[in-house]
Amino acid sequence: MTQQLKEQVLEANLDLVREGLVQFTFGNASGIDRATGLVAIKPSGVPYDKLRPEDMVVTDLSGKIVEGKLKPSSDLDTHLLLYREFPAIGGVAHTHSMYATVWAQAGRAIPALGTTHADYFYGEVPVTDELTDKEIGGEYVHNTGVAIVRRFQGLDPLAVPAVLVAGHAPFAWGKNALEAAHHAALLEAVARMAWHTMTLNPECRGVSQALLDRHYFRKHGAKATYGQ
Amino acid sequence: MTQQLKEQVLEANLDLVREGLVQFTFGNASGIDRATGLVAIKPSGVPYDKLRPEDMVVTDLSGKIVEGKLKPSSDLDTHLLLYREFPAIGGVAHTHSMYATVWAQAGRAIPALGTTHADYFYGEVPVTDELTDKEIGGEYVHNTGVAIVRRFQGLDPLAVPAVLVAGHAPFAWGKNALEAAHHAALLEAVARMAWHTMTLNPECRGVSQALLDRHYFRKHGAKATYGQ
Amino acid sequence: MTQQLKEQVLEANLDLVREGLVQFTFGNASGIDRATGLVAIKPSGVPYDKLRPEDMVVTDLSGKIVEGKLKPSSDLDTHLLLYREFPAIGGVAHTHSMYATVWAQAGRAIPALGTTHADYFYGEVPVTDELTDKEIGGEYVHNTGVAIVRRFQGLDPLAVPAVLVAGHAPFAWGKNALEAAHHAALLEAVARMAWHTMTLNPECRGVSQALLDRHYFRKHGAKATYGQ
Amino acid sequence: MTQQLKEQVLEANLDLVREGLVQFTFGNASGIDRATGLVAIKPSGVPYDKLRPEDMVVTDLSGKIVEGKLKPSSDLDTHLLLYREFPAIGGVAHTHSMYATVWAQAGRAIPALGTTHADYFYGEVPVTDELTDKEIGGEYVHNTGVAIVRRFQGLDPLAVPAVLVAGHAPFAWGKNALEAAHHAALLEAVARMAWHTMTLNPECRGVSQALLDRHYFRKHGAKATYGQ
Repeated sequence: MTQQLKEQVLEANLDLVREGLVQFTFGNASGIDRATGLVAIKPSGVPYDKLRPEDMVVTDLSGKIVEGKLKPSSDLDTHLLLYREFPAIGGVAHTHSMYATVWAQAGRAIPALGTTHADYFYGEVPVTDELTDKEIGGEYVHNTGVAIVRRFQGLDPLAVPAVLVAGHAPFAWGKNALEAAHHAALLEAVARMAWHTMTLNPECRGVSQALLDRHYFRKHGAKATYGQ
Repeated sequence: MTQQLKEQVLEANLDLVREGLVQFTFGNASGIDRATGLVAIKPSGVPYDKLRPEDMVVTDLSGKIVEGKLKPSSDLDTHLLLYREFPAIGGVAHTHSMYATVWAQAGRAIPALGTTHADYFYGEVPVTDELTDKEIGGEYVHNTGVAIVRRFQGLDPLAVPAVLVAGHAPFAWGKNALEAAHHAALLEAVARMAWHTMTLNPECRGVSQALLDRHYFRKHGAKATYGQ
Repeated sequence: MTQQLKEQVLEANLDLVREGLVQFTFGNASGIDRATGLVAIKPSGVPYDKLRPEDMVVTDLSGKIVEGKLKPSSDLDTHLLLYREFPAIGGVAHTHSMYATVWAQAGRAIPALGTTHADYFYGEVPVTDELTDKEIGGEYVHNTGVAIVRRFQGLDPLAVPAVLVAGHAPFAWGKNALEAAHHAALLEAVARMAWHTMTLNPECRGVSQALLDRHYFRKHGAKATYGQ
Repeated sequence: MTQQLKEQVLEANLDLVREGLVQFTFGNASGIDRATGLVAIKPSGVPYDKLRPEDMVVTDLSGKIVEGKLKPSSDLDTHLLLYREFPAIGGVAHTHSMYATVWAQAGRAIPALGTTHADYFYGEVPVTDELTDKEIGGEYVHNTGVAIVRRFQGLDPLAVPAVLVAGHAPFAWGKNALEAAHHAALLEAVARMAWHTMTLNPECRGVSQALLDRHYFRKHGAKATYGQ
């Protein structure tokens, strides 16, 4: 029953590598089966070229390991909190992809500067506050998720399917693990364009609300017209 | 009769991918048979590695589908307006290639900073005005073409075979679909050099009119001497 | 007895190439057998694709050649001084990798701007003072090592396993030649992110001490929890 | 007799492509047999993947075609002037490689910012004056060479084996066509590092004369110690 989930999660992890989003072992993707509440995630610190479906670690939503012999990704507690707090999502991907990480390190949200951005992210990709020393010293990985959820108050996670954790790196999500990985790739493309745009023209204001609406709803929602 | 056109349009679309101008499905090329007024264009949102000549959609200049079972590219109406307004062109290519898109997002024309530019673009590559909310809310794709045509008043589309749509991305054109794709690639190379030049030396003024003339007319017009 | 050391040193040199850290012949790695005090290093100016284990040059800690028919890397004396002064290290790697070299040329330390950095370097990657004319005119290669050791007074070489030599390029080290090469690759990744971050936001202050501690000690020391 | 020269010149042209210095047909390399005064050069505007040794065009030093059925590179007259004025050189390479062209477009010499530069270029890589309208309107290609030679008054072409032509692109040279192509590749690597260095730290002063001397003479002249 978890076999299909584990295979999909493995594919999502390999997509991160194929899209050039992961160097060394900085990255992990997970997926959840909402019917059972079981989460499959990459094991910690295992080289990507050796991963098999059975290496994926399956836990419940509290982090109790249900299947698998390896330790789960050290970022598990962030994934779990996102699944508990964002009930509409089915997959999470975390990378240290270059340009998205640069925006996170700079502590700046990625503004919506063009239609490439608007096609996938309905507004800026936000950045969390820096974690306090107390949050870092406590349940750090869990608190990373807390900072994300706090930043998304009033936002729809599916309309803006990614976030930058200040001083750290991005998280992306989607309706399943594969879409989460795809959003991580789109985030990197958008972050790269935005970096080059702001460096050329620091005064750039970005697209109008009308253009944001037009592009986003061309690909999303009941009136979407894009594709076959 | 449209078979040859469809094959050429497919090749032009694949050239966009081979030249690294397209990520995911952001891009499309079309061509027109001026004798019949029929336009062949890539279908909407189909992965490039699955495209076959018979997947190309053929329409007349008003957008009525004449051949093909798939929906045409969502940018069709921009292509059609360019064909109607620029009678000398036979192909159009649209991409979100990184550096050209960055100039479009920054809302700045690409100045003629060197001979690489002058060999193909006789002067700056212009940027359109931003579309108004009314233009965006109305026939948006058509109005994108209107903004391009408005910006080209007094310019020769074949002497400057590309444009940046503000906040969006570039369009390039040529005497057929293959040349349009080639111009899209040259535009990206020129945009990349110009980005790096202006970042190094924001005061850079660009080439003289004499150098622009010399290089452009070495490769174009009755007195061209380049090549075999 | 030195066979295994020579094979490992060859692999480390090839890792530098595979990680894209070396262009032409700018780069070299070495390793030491602490039991015998013998050092194996790449020969000088030999193309990487022709290197065999038996081409590695073996010297003692004073630089006397013990095995091998080729001349050792021209940077040998820097490696030897590092082995004499940093008794905990077992391998050294020197490259002119792009971004690390850029920071060295700019004469600036790489600040700890994010968790990617903190995972491997416990604080900024320091830059040496420029060598004086007298140091350059004398035993230049040896004096390069002197400048590094001087800069590391009060620092733990294994907690910050790399340095930038001002106006020159980086050196990295580790518990053996392979780890030294791995640290050279991590340094380049971190240098690249830091370059892009400071260019986007020159005011960036970097991570807090609490975050630096949390990430560094997650992967290092008695309480490390990362990996299997 | 010219067979060997033509083969070497073809290899040098292909090296430019293999090193990533040429996009489309922007680039050409030539070599001279000083005994006979014959120059072999790439033909104009022929795709690189179709070039054979017999396609190389052989001319005398005045540009008279001696062998070959194709038109020579449109930059021939610049190559010829360099051979006439710099008797120590045996090969010339011209590219529009990205970073070197960016410095040329910016109208700025590449300062000697590190030892990577000093290993191959004994001082800054100079930039010519812009050509006057009269020079552009007259024998433009020849006058490009005139501007280079004028800039090298008081300089040794073999100590600084490259130049930037303002608003255009670089030329490099060496003792034969292969070394010219190698110097074109080193120039690009150095230009890329210098671009990133000056963008990070615009106040960067570059290496001392002592360091320039030490590195340059380690690889060049009677006292060279580098390599086997």
